[in-house]
Amino acid sequence: MKLVKNAAGRLIPEEIDGRKLLPFQGAFADPIYHQNRRKYAPPIPRTHPEWLTGEKKLCANLEDAIKKSGLQSGMTISFHHHLRNGDFVVNMVLEACEKLGIKDLTLAPTALFPVHKPVIDFIKRGVVKNIQGSMNGPVGEFVSYGGLPTTAILRTHGGRVRAIEDGDLHIDVAFIAAPCADDYGNANGVYGPSACGPLAYSYVDAMYADKVVVITDNLVEYPCLPISIPSTNVDYVAVVDRIGDPEGIMSGTLRITKSPTRLHIAKLAAQFIHESPYYRDGFSFQTGAGGISLAVTKFLGEYMEEDGVQASFINGGITKFSVELFKKGIVRKLFDGQVFDPVAIRSFRDDIWHQETPMTMYANIHSKGCLVNRQDIGFLGATEVDVDFNVNVNTHSDGLLLHGIGGHTDVAAGAQLAMIVVPSYRKRIPVIRKSVTTITTPGETIDVIVTERGIAINPLRKDLVEHFKNSTLPIKDIHEIHKEVMKICGGEPEPPKTTDRIIALIEYRDGTIIDVVKQVAR
Amino acid sequence: MKLVKNAAGRLIPEEIDGRKLLPFQGAFADPIYHQNRRKYAPPIPRTHPEWLTGEKKLCANLEDAIKKSGLQSGMTISFHHHLRNGDFVVNMVLEACEKLGIKDLTLAPTALFPVHKPVIDFIKRGVVKNIQGSMNGPVGEFVSYGGLPTTAILRTHGGRVRAIEDGDLHIDVAFIAAPCADDYGNANGVYGPSACGPLAYSYVDAMYADKVVVITDNLVEYPCLPISIPSTNVDYVAVVDRIGDPEGIMSGTLRITKSPTRLHIAKLAAQFIHESPYYRDGFSFQTGAGGISLAVTKFLGEYMEEDGVQASFINGGITKFSVELFKKGIVRKLFDGQVFDPVAIRSFRDDIWHQETPMTMYANIHSKGCLVNRQDIGFLGATEVDVDFNVNVNTHSDGLLLHGIGGHTDVAAGAQLAMIVVPSYRKRIPVIRKSVTTITTPGETIDVIVTERGIAINPLRKDLVEHFKNSTLPIKDIHEIHKEVMKICGGEPEPPKTTDRIIALIEYRDGTIIDVVKQVAR
Repeated sequence: MKLVKNAAGRLIPEEIDGRKLLPFQGAFADPIYHQNRRKYAPPIPRTHPEWLTGEKKLCANLEDAIKKSGLQSGMTISFHHHLRNGDFVVNMVLEACEKLGIKDLTLAPTALFPVHKPVIDFIKRGVVKNIQGSMNGPVGEFVSYGGLPTTAILRTHGGRVRAIEDGDLHIDVAFIAAPCADDYGNANGVYGPSACGPLAYSYVDAMYADKVVVITDNLVEYPCLPISIPSTNVDYVAVVDRIGDPEGIMSGTLRITKSPTRLHIAKLAAQFIHESPYYRDGFSFQTGAGGISLAVTKFLGEYMEEDGVQASFINGGITKFSVELFKKGIVRKLFDGQVFDPVAIRSFRDDIWHQETPMTMYANIHSKGCLVNRQDIGFLGATEVDVDFNVNVNTHSDGLLLHGIGGHTDVAAGAQLAMIVVPSYRKRIPVIRKSVTTITTPGETIDVIVTERGIAINPLRKDLVEHFKNSTLPIKDIHEIHKEVMKICGGEPEPPKTTDRIIALIEYRDGTIIDVVKQVAR
Repeated sequence: MKLVKNAAGRLIPEEIDGRKLLPFQGAFADPIYHQNRRKYAPPIPRTHPEWLTGEKKLCANLEDAIKKSGLQSGMTISFHHHLRNGDFVVNMVLEACEKLGIKDLTLAPTALFPVHKPVIDFIKRGVVKNIQGSMNGPVGEFVSYGGLPTTAILRTHGGRVRAIEDGDLHIDVAFIAAPCADDYGNANGVYGPSACGPLAYSYVDAMYADKVVVITDNLVEYPCLPISIPSTNVDYVAVVDRIGDPEGIMSGTLRITKSPTRLHIAKLAAQFIHESPYYRDGFSFQTGAGGISLAVTKFLGEYMEEDGVQASFINGGITKFSVELFKKGIVRKLFDGQVFDPVAIRSFRDDIWHQETPMTMYANIHSKGCLVNRQDIGFLGATEVDVDFNVNVNTHSDGLLLHGIGGHTDVAAGAQLAMIVVPSYRKRIPVIRKSVTTITTPGETIDVIVTERGIAINPLRKDLVEHFKNSTLPIKDIHEIHKEVMKICGGEPEPPKTTDRIIALIEYRDGTIIDVVKQVAR
């Protein structure tokens, strides 16, 4: 296998599983755009009225829908993860496929969760051959040890929608779990026992998949409003008992960190933002659902309330904490790709200025203008960060691939101030490292790293370095923080013991390969 | 020119202006679908953040936006008609194009109105070479007399979106008049001095045009919500003084007919619906803004209120009369492609169950399921109807092309009960004829014609004939009504005096040609 060093310094094979790879060429190089290609063109469909043809979209059951969809062995099927760790649909569809004798499938979910552990058995039994999507937890671990017979592909939220729209990820059949749907396929996520808020992840699947099956446990009278997924993109509808478990759908345990170290990090981050040139009326930011991120949101909200400063919007993952700022009038609008709690669902359902964000609107570099490009500030997490500001969110330092990318890389590229908020080490394992195990997000798109030991500004951001030169904040050189961490942790951890086999590609948002993940040796 | 007789019995040339024509083959034959083609694939675009590149979508003025769009002579530009007879944008863009020396343009508006009379001069001066879109009034008359150097194409709402999605109508630059927009191109029609409600006609243009320019007189802070046109589809934004005149945007004079004959027709229509098998809780219908249509809505609403029957939805063109039924709870939901008055705009803006309907959702035969397919009843107008139930909405009996198609043909094909409500003659000119001057909508899709002289059921609808055989309604054979009309009017009118030149094609919703319009001799 011939390897090429990419612009992030990682060795990338020229080809894998028969696919020619483009090595990463820099955060904004975007070689696919320069190939002057066209978007993927789905086949022209048609429908006549049911009263004329007798053909109904509503199927007898899930198996019937799968049969009618024409799904065959070797094809690609897709799913969204709005039901998170409460999703019943991925396992249910794979079970039905196995019953129907369909195998060698490529799974293209937006993300898998611990609830999808049975996917491991479907892989072992040959029902699933490849995964292109985030794998949180057990499936990721299984793949890390070489369990998948092919190479997995991990993409950002923006990168996945790009791949679909550009025709690099072709979906034969999209299965869309819908908390509320009608018999013509109009669907939303805001009503019913499995309510999950937006269905934003699936919007692109519905538009570009050859066939689309909506699976619901809450069939309502036509027309189902509001419409997140329109009937114009749906071929079949199947009703099942339950699509999900509300306990697993809602994070439930969402709470602001209580760790003094993490609260300290969040305070430093909020203070940095407060002193930055981006803090002004009408600024915007993105929050996540992590404990530190929630704390930053809280502290930032306190500053804003005190200063009488309003944000124009929060780009989320929306939580009750964001909704609170919105209801108080501190934040004028909310953009929402996924919600994390019932308060956020209700706000999403009822507030006109709490807007659903299909992923192309959220983060597609190959759109004419996505949301992350308009964000002032994004605070993001990491498993590791290195002295070149590269960020790893996928693997741990033992090499295990346990997390997806989400919108991390997209936000880092788009936001004017991309900020990593992390402890400098966790359980004696350094987070700040000389070189990250896996590069998820290139250092050139990260502006600031905030740790409990100090704040490192990327030297590429001369303007920020200058702006903060008289600040009382603990601004430090990243190498200095790294040195302190090395002292505490007793040096860099052992490199992961891996074989030569590449088990996963980390695809940058523009479709190039920024890094590979190797099989962990047992 | 070789002519072929199509399935509606009309002679269609094999080719015109270098385009091979498919003759109409029946309302549901859909030959393009059977060619196994794919949808149009626009070029892959990209954007980087403005803070990185300094490239802004917001242009200095309209000319600047046109220049940046790359518009050249010979290209196709498109417009929506939500501003109706108050639109300033078509004339404004053509003026700017002329200034820039751009000529031979193809106009692809959804519709032109009397306010667009200056288009005649742009045609004369060579700025406009072709029109593909509805021409209401003076431009239609000018084209009828041979004023356009090429053949115009008229399409239904569903047919236009089909043509764009299927790649038969390629738009180089779409100009979207936006009553409310931000500097990134997110736009809606619900706020500002030129508020017009939905921007549903332009949704497909924004998705498929190579370049998209949003023109607004009401630039608001990013992000502009709600989003009818998303920033992901917009290249440039231009701010102008005024995009329209509210007087012309709103019909204003909307009122239920006062003519006793027309009220009688409306009563018969409502009574027919009331006795039909489709009248039941949860049924649906489409209304228009014409005087008879409004009266049918009113009378039907009275029946529903009395019977305690609710409709699941109205598919509109929404007026205050529909909103009234909605507010009273007689109609559960409203679908809205365009609004006609301020009451409807407010409802569209504020009511979650008053839903915007992009044209592909409204009526695209090449979607996986559009709204007209789910309509029980549509009541429609006509300039002429013939004994084969063919309908003309485009020309008058003198051959002048004065009206667009709108959704007429789409609704007729989709609705279970497609009903024409017309007086049997107007000013001694027969409406019920042996053969219509121009076929817009094929007779096989029309179920009932309601006139003041009686109600004719299409004999193809044996079920309806049977259902109404004991009705006290004046059910008559269409030939009988025709005979009466001939007696009153003294026979069929003179056929229009035309030359052999074809000045317009009437394209059926599936992309075939159902009829042609010939040049009227002076």
